[in-house]
Amino acid sequence: MTVDVVTLLRAELGDRVDVSPASLSAARADKSGHAATGTPLAVVHAASVEDVQAVMRIATATRTPVVPRGAGTGLAGGANTGGGEISLSLRAMNLVREIRPADLLAVVEPGILNAELNALLEPHGVWWAPDPASRAISTVGGNIATGAGGLLCAKYGVVRDAVLGLDLVLADGRLLRLGHRSVKGVTGLDLTSLVIGSEGILGVVVGATLKLRRLVVGERVTLTALFDGVRSAAVASAAVTASGIQPAVMELMDATSLAAVHRLLSLSTPPPGAAQLTIQTDGPAAGDEARAIAEVLHLAGGHVSVAADEAEGETLLAVRRALHPAMETLGATLIEDVSVPRSALPAMFDAIARIERQYGLVIPTVAHAGDGNLHPNFVFDGPDVPDVVWSAAEDLFRAALALGGTLTGEHGIGVLKRRWLADELGDDQWLLQRDIARVFDPLGILNPGKVFAT
Amino acid sequence: MTVDVVTLLRAELGDRVDVSPASLSAARADKSGHAATGTPLAVVHAASVEDVQAVMRIATATRTPVVPRGAGTGLAGGANTGGGEISLSLRAMNLVREIRPADLLAVVEPGILNAELNALLEPHGVWWAPDPASRAISTVGGNIATGAGGLLCAKYGVVRDAVLGLDLVLADGRLLRLGHRSVKGVTGLDLTSLVIGSEGILGVVVGATLKLRRLVVGERVTLTALFDGVRSAAVASAAVTASGIQPAVMELMDATSLAAVHRLLSLSTPPPGAAQLTIQTDGPAAGDEARAIAEVLHLAGGHVSVAADEAEGETLLAVRRALHPAMETLGATLIEDVSVPRSALPAMFDAIARIERQYGLVIPTVAHAGDGNLHPNFVFDGPDVPDVVWSAAEDLFRAALALGGTLTGEHGIGVLKRRWLADELGDDQWLLQRDIARVFDPLGILNPGKVFAT
Repeated sequence: MTVDVVTLLRAELGDRVDVSPASLSAARADKSGHAATGTPLAVVHAASVEDVQAVMRIATATRTPVVPRGAGTGLAGGANTGGGEISLSLRAMNLVREIRPADLLAVVEPGILNAELNALLEPHGVWWAPDPASRAISTVGGNIATGAGGLLCAKYGVVRDAVLGLDLVLADGRLLRLGHRSVKGVTGLDLTSLVIGSEGILGVVVGATLKLRRLVVGERVTLTALFDGVRSAAVASAAVTASGIQPAVMELMDATSLAAVHRLLSLSTPPPGAAQLTIQTDGPAAGDEARAIAEVLHLAGGHVSVAADEAEGETLLAVRRALHPAMETLGATLIEDVSVPRSALPAMFDAIARIERQYGLVIPTVAHAGDGNLHPNFVFDGPDVPDVVWSAAEDLFRAALALGGTLTGEHGIGVLKRRWLADELGDDQWLLQRDIARVFDPLGILNPGKVFAT
Repeated sequence: MTVDVVTLLRAELGDRVDVSPASLSAARADKSGHAATGTPLAVVHAASVEDVQAVMRIATATRTPVVPRGAGTGLAGGANTGGGEISLSLRAMNLVREIRPADLLAVVEPGILNAELNALLEPHGVWWAPDPASRAISTVGGNIATGAGGLLCAKYGVVRDAVLGLDLVLADGRLLRLGHRSVKGVTGLDLTSLVIGSEGILGVVVGATLKLRRLVVGERVTLTALFDGVRSAAVASAAVTASGIQPAVMELMDATSLAAVHRLLSLSTPPPGAAQLTIQTDGPAAGDEARAIAEVLHLAGGHVSVAADEAEGETLLAVRRALHPAMETLGATLIEDVSVPRSALPAMFDAIARIERQYGLVIPTVAHAGDGNLHPNFVFDGPDVPDVVWSAAEDLFRAALALGGTLTGEHGIGVLKRRWLADELGDDQWLLQRDIARVFDPLGILNPGKVFAT
């Protein structure tokens, strides 16, 4: 059977079927640091919609599981491909088919990198707002599959706010065109939104009509504020939100994560226990807003520095963007992704401090403080997640839920968070969602075991 | 059987079960001017989530169709209730359960009117952006059921951009809590977005967590520009969009609709053939933006007037808001709702002119020119839509689709547009969508015959 599938793939897709040990090994893992069990049958490097349809027809005929994959930068194991499965890479489908500045839309293939797309859009005076920290290395298709967020979400929205339509290949190889090209459209059920964030279990996204924004005019002003602890930094961020000023970026780093990044980047060691807010304003009023925010932060006990220019501002933000590589230097990590209403940020940091004490762990944490999304990092000696970490993570998730929060703000469920999915959704909704997925994929061959535990 | 259902409803819901002839008659129709055949079994005025659950349990037990209803202001017949059906009114469930300005969210019951909600929010410095022309008389639940748009969408978004979570009673009476309260959240499939715009076929919305915005600071500046014809007005609106300035409102009225409103409001008769753009800017740069837009309109051949103050501006906008009552004075109407990419507006008006000539009809048309959503009105002597109007409407829809547009921008499919749904979706997607609806409602008792023609 195994030989048959690869033979069938080869007959239709030739050398786009890759069984090199390095490729098969790479397809087992993503950036979460976790890997699937077993070795994939093959990696198919799709070059066209027809390639994807051919793979899905063969997969349906042979009941072979298929795991769609972009750049493999996911943090929940959603693209990890195991034994008996085909890794379907969309990375080579990276064309921009249309850019229409007057209609604020672009039509793209899924494999283009987020940053590559924005570099192509900039000369047209437009941009695509989703801004995951991984934007330099993650694909638009992967951003769509996870419903990615990022640093700019409170002001400029998440992926769901920035997609008008999707081309979707179903499990049996049929191609559907979902959504529309107009600003408004309510024809039938909104399957475009349903597919966003569905992590490859409903179909394979082979094209996307993206909603663009005009480039923001005016300067960008970046400031940092150092606080004596993470709680005071969180209270200060809530004060900024309550002031009614909407920064473009408001990032919080706790003492452990700040120190780790400073070590990685060979910067001076921060004061012990110090936590930092990094804030950026943009637009015509950026300077005034930054001054007003600096005053709020100063009153909240922060030691404030304002970047002299945009270049220095980018350097300050680069500290935040280096978090993930800095965590990798500490050991294996389980990256959590809870999100709470913004006013609950201080209470969530209290809960994290309690969990650190209770389980005897250090949990370096960063937060998109502007939108209430936290990334607590559980660091351990790999490869397997210790039971104590799973227990602490479960405690963390329940604390977020009790504060009106959610299990995952932007990374998705994948395999690493599926054990808690029913806890948040409730059994009735879990079953309903799984039944909806079955309508798209009656044989259960699309990314099986992801999102819904089998 | 009929007697049994009403008896069962009465036993649980007492005098909230209404069989008065006036109520039963009113439930047959919405603001589209079209009515269902036959007389409903009863109107139930639900006062609580438990009431809704009781109705749905009885409906499931007796296989009785249920039509959820807000204020009955729909324009596609989506809430029209016919013989053998229960009209389930949510209008009395109109409480605001929470307002959380710091988290920019509110939790409301579905029956509150859009304008009532915004009046309650204003003292807290926040607002809910969806702004259908019917906002004074339409409910938030109805706005959600149709995925309503309105006048402000290009700048401030549609309903889908403004809802975080929904409480949904399923066909069998179970209650699900969909979505989240945080800015970000990607836990499982996005059923919140799927339910928005689903027109009552997936469940009954009994609560909504709404995403709010802070009140816009600064003045509002309104201007009008009169053009010698609708095409030149459309070209001018495209020039405004291309200038990169984002007005809050940009409405276009063609000659027939402008003249009809002027008659209704006893204003002076506009010049023959004259079409008008009404534009409003807001925010800190509103004055500068209005001046720049006035220049663009002047260069495009418009005769521009700027309102002296906000009160005069509201008077100018009231002309546009009076369109629907003005159309009602002309006769029965079939209101179309096509939406096209903004740059295609002039071409769409060309198509409307061709259709007027070809079918010997006058089609008064207004457009949300800022977002490309047009409302061509077919006027006829009622009660039944003449075949020539259906033919012209079909021609219109195909023209919109050819321009990259969609059948309905904000009114929904209801009964009036279901004949064309498969034309836009394709048969494969039509079937998939219907099968998804069946997962929610296996017996087909929720608003049967709406959206999907039976």
